[in-house]
Amino acid sequence: MFEGVNASDGIGIGVARVAVEPDLTFTPHKPEDVDAEKARYAAAIEKFIGQTNAQIERMKSNGLEKEAGIMNAHIEFAEDDGIKEMVNGSIDGGMCAEQGVSEAYDMYYNMFSNMEDELFRERAADIADVKTALLADLLGQELVDLSSLPEHSVIIVHELTPSMTADIDRDNVVAIVTETGGRTSHSAIIARALEIPAVLSVADCTSNIKTGDMVVVDGGKGQVVVDPDDELLSTYTEKAKKYAADKAALEAFRGVATKTADGKQVLLVANIGNPGDATAALEHDAEGVGLFRSEFLFMDAKELPSEEEQFSAYQKVTIAMKDKPVIIRTLDVGGDKEIPYLDMKREDNPFMGFRAVRYCLNNPEQYKVQLRALLRASAYGDIKIMLPLVTTLDEVRQVKALVETCKKELDAEGVKYNQDIEVGTMVETPSASLISDLLAKECDFFSIGTNDLIGYTMCADRGNDRVAYLYNVYQPSVLRSLKTIIQNGVKQGIMVGMCGEAAADPLLIPVLLSFGLTEFSVSAPSILRTRRTISEWTMEEADALTEKVMSLETSAEVRAALQAAAK
Amino acid sequence: MFEGVNASDGIGIGVARVAVEPDLTFTPHKPEDVDAEKARYAAAIEKFIGQTNAQIERMKSNGLEKEAGIMNAHIEFAEDDGIKEMVNGSIDGGMCAEQGVSEAYDMYYNMFSNMEDELFRERAADIADVKTALLADLLGQELVDLSSLPEHSVIIVHELTPSMTADIDRDNVVAIVTETGGRTSHSAIIARALEIPAVLSVADCTSNIKTGDMVVVDGGKGQVVVDPDDELLSTYTEKAKKYAADKAALEAFRGVATKTADGKQVLLVANIGNPGDATAALEHDAEGVGLFRSEFLFMDAKELPSEEEQFSAYQKVTIAMKDKPVIIRTLDVGGDKEIPYLDMKREDNPFMGFRAVRYCLNNPEQYKVQLRALLRASAYGDIKIMLPLVTTLDEVRQVKALVETCKKELDAEGVKYNQDIEVGTMVETPSASLISDLLAKECDFFSIGTNDLIGYTMCADRGNDRVAYLYNVYQPSVLRSLKTIIQNGVKQGIMVGMCGEAAADPLLIPVLLSFGLTEFSVSAPSILRTRRTISEWTMEEADALTEKVMSLETSAEVRAALQAAAK
Repeated sequence: MFEGVNASDGIGIGVARVAVEPDLTFTPHKPEDVDAEKARYAAAIEKFIGQTNAQIERMKSNGLEKEAGIMNAHIEFAEDDGIKEMVNGSIDGGMCAEQGVSEAYDMYYNMFSNMEDELFRERAADIADVKTALLADLLGQELVDLSSLPEHSVIIVHELTPSMTADIDRDNVVAIVTETGGRTSHSAIIARALEIPAVLSVADCTSNIKTGDMVVVDGGKGQVVVDPDDELLSTYTEKAKKYAADKAALEAFRGVATKTADGKQVLLVANIGNPGDATAALEHDAEGVGLFRSEFLFMDAKELPSEEEQFSAYQKVTIAMKDKPVIIRTLDVGGDKEIPYLDMKREDNPFMGFRAVRYCLNNPEQYKVQLRALLRASAYGDIKIMLPLVTTLDEVRQVKALVETCKKELDAEGVKYNQDIEVGTMVETPSASLISDLLAKECDFFSIGTNDLIGYTMCADRGNDRVAYLYNVYQPSVLRSLKTIIQNGVKQGIMVGMCGEAAADPLLIPVLLSFGLTEFSVSAPSILRTRRTISEWTMEEADALTEKVMSLETSAEVRAALQAAAK
Repeated sequence: MFEGVNASDGIGIGVARVAVEPDLTFTPHKPEDVDAEKARYAAAIEKFIGQTNAQIERMKSNGLEKEAGIMNAHIEFAEDDGIKEMVNGSIDGGMCAEQGVSEAYDMYYNMFSNMEDELFRERAADIADVKTALLADLLGQELVDLSSLPEHSVIIVHELTPSMTADIDRDNVVAIVTETGGRTSHSAIIARALEIPAVLSVADCTSNIKTGDMVVVDGGKGQVVVDPDDELLSTYTEKAKKYAADKAALEAFRGVATKTADGKQVLLVANIGNPGDATAALEHDAEGVGLFRSEFLFMDAKELPSEEEQFSAYQKVTIAMKDKPVIIRTLDVGGDKEIPYLDMKREDNPFMGFRAVRYCLNNPEQYKVQLRALLRASAYGDIKIMLPLVTTLDEVRQVKALVETCKKELDAEGVKYNQDIEVGTMVETPSASLISDLLAKECDFFSIGTNDLIGYTMCADRGNDRVAYLYNVYQPSVLRSLKTIIQNGVKQGIMVGMCGEAAADPLLIPVLLSFGLTEFSVSAPSILRTRRTISEWTMEEADALTEKVMSLETSAEVRAALQAAAK
């Protein structure tokens, strides 16, 4: 049995398909016919572009618009005139196409991988991908083809790349095992979105597991069993059945209101990252969108998206969601999110730096473009505006003043918008928590961002493994902060939601209900499960458990008490 | 008039002495006598070492032990056998000594400045210093000599280096103006320690101001006036007199207890960085040490200091301070403090990383060496142990368990220590503030570290200029956090001190008194001024002001209210 990171829930039982790297070694030789050699190179490019375009289409039809954008860079690096000239020049000089491709792409790779700017360095991986594809084609090697796997395949691969993702056939792939990646890696996000069980960071799995091996993958526990004996196999088959039955049972919670056992109703909405996700949110029966991250618009672009482009994206989501509420967070740039054309300085502690609403308020004309686009889109549905990383009352007041300016401009232009559009704030900093009574008076709603709030409260970077033991929502300090925020919001009569990962944590849900949380914003696949968890608690039970939990002194005690009480 | 950073208070009126860089250009030539050329090089090394040793002695006698340590690196780079071989080899090959020195040191400079590790990169500056000194000597150029300036000199210099610092004659230098550095730069710290008015980061001052110019430096306001007219000069002369009189008036607060106007007594102690600072603390009439940073022991060493070395340093301080309390903070490594031999990983957000008590508890055997040394030194005075960056109760309990283990070991070895040694915590994280009631039960004292607490609460890195507008102690959220911490400590009956910069802020002192702070730990030169500020307030006045301030909603309002009420 191998252990790894539990990246995507579920039990997968099937046959291993190890996606090994193709053998790309070759003996350099002088081509007999230079023109024929150039034609081989040109054909390889053409084939690559054809395959990539097909992948892009598959990705888009699977709602993976962002990943499709990445693939466009592959096409650019295949078609690049400078590279083409270099390779054809090498062939003219007596090199074979393989060597010409290899040397030209290596040169570009080195150039990009040594650049200061991280965005350029990341492009180096794309260059290596294109080189691999072209070389494989020239050498007649097949790259891993995940689009035509037999039924019940378990993919064993070093890393799940965007191009592989596009090829995965959900009907035939029962599980994924990789050698790299954590719970927030690209591979993990993809696996969860496709609802395929996955265990990541299983060391040397591509050599320790052979194609044809019988494999059981327990995505929830992060375990991979190779060639299980009959007893173990039947245990896992039972588990898989139970998991499937459990998932089927969740269907009972489709189309019903989200209520506690004693009838207290709350709003259950989805976090989304791009307009395409709205479909998935509705498919999973979300009652609206609690967090629409507007970064995708900026990260996939080469320059600042225009008011028109932004308006169109916001309008698309709000129309898709019909009259359900859609909370759109204004640009949360900085921290771990870089956008090259915004020309932001490298910082020693980016999480404590010039980011999010700080950046926006320092660039008011640029920020107004987004605010105007949001206002215009508000004519088409229930859009609310949310500010990230607020630490002071001034920031909220300044944004509200900018919104008023935009409204006056739109009035003068005769453009429609929702006059009563709500402006609220993410509560995700210790400062915002400490002044949540003051902020509640200034805001139309709160949405607690637990991911950052935990990090700042515990002074622990979520991405830093060595302090991961401190980073958890069961810390008494974090729970006290949540209680303060929620109760201050409730007291002021505003909606208090939560859009951090904790909102979908079944252990924590009774505590959040007891504190008074009225909106839970979770990933689309967690909607039905969260609705069920909420339905299992009466407020009296939730209050009793919460009273007990809040008297405890350590996160271990809190977690144990919540686990003991879990339904 | 030029504006810059107000780095060290006071008014200096005098004549500019611009310390320009020597002209180190030379024409490479083939030496006639190779041996004579090598002898020139050897003589330059010898002279440099002689001068540097003299500087080191001057530094040590001025209590600048840490700076003296830096100078040792200069000697090493002058004497280095590899460099010597390279230069002499170049001379053998027909180069002049100037070119040989220049090329060899440039090579080393490039090598060091390109290293990944910041500590090595910083060494590059030392290499450049040595090259400059050797070249200047070979070329017969005089380097800036700050040790023999005429009376009333105002030093105008690009940057104050450690070697210049050693040369400064406090009697003849009335002010310092530099082109680089902020309030926490090396230049600023040195200027404040020497109590010389200083304005830093005055762009192009070495070209805009000429030697012989009459100059007025207002260190408190960060202003430099060149060739003031008679009226301005007399205004500043008045100001200088007032400043001097004010300073003399402070002498009335020497040797008296620290009390409010209505007689409430508090403890007024000093922050120190090395055992030598204890003398300055006593000279400034500190009632003890509120924060002795133990990092100097580790940062100036090439390997982990032994128990014996640590014991000797702690013993030295506690004996120097007689029976006054000495709070020693255990190793606060990480964040912005790197120690190369501890082999810590580079982190994306070091302030939210694996540092301070986190690092220590992960290396318990190493940590026990420090705890044993502290316990042994506690036999010689009133030493208290303080933990940095606490976020959970578990951390305090774990350290206390380690202390108990060390006590048992010492008992078995028959070694003396203070059985009742107090163990307390820095309160400097939002988490510690939120659970300060729980921590107070587990700790013998609190000391609030406002520098980090403000940064974490506001999610603003103190070293990041672009978020400096958020980083301030007058933020309502920060004040609320301080109130909670102090009142939770007071309720539990433990001492609550503050060792961050805010403890010496005359605007904030009445508020801290009203919250119930019982210990103020400030820099040695701030002791008398802080004692006076405390003496100016009755508790009734402080309470009334605090009640008003705590009802305000923004830091600007708070600051204005405190300024209006200032005595």
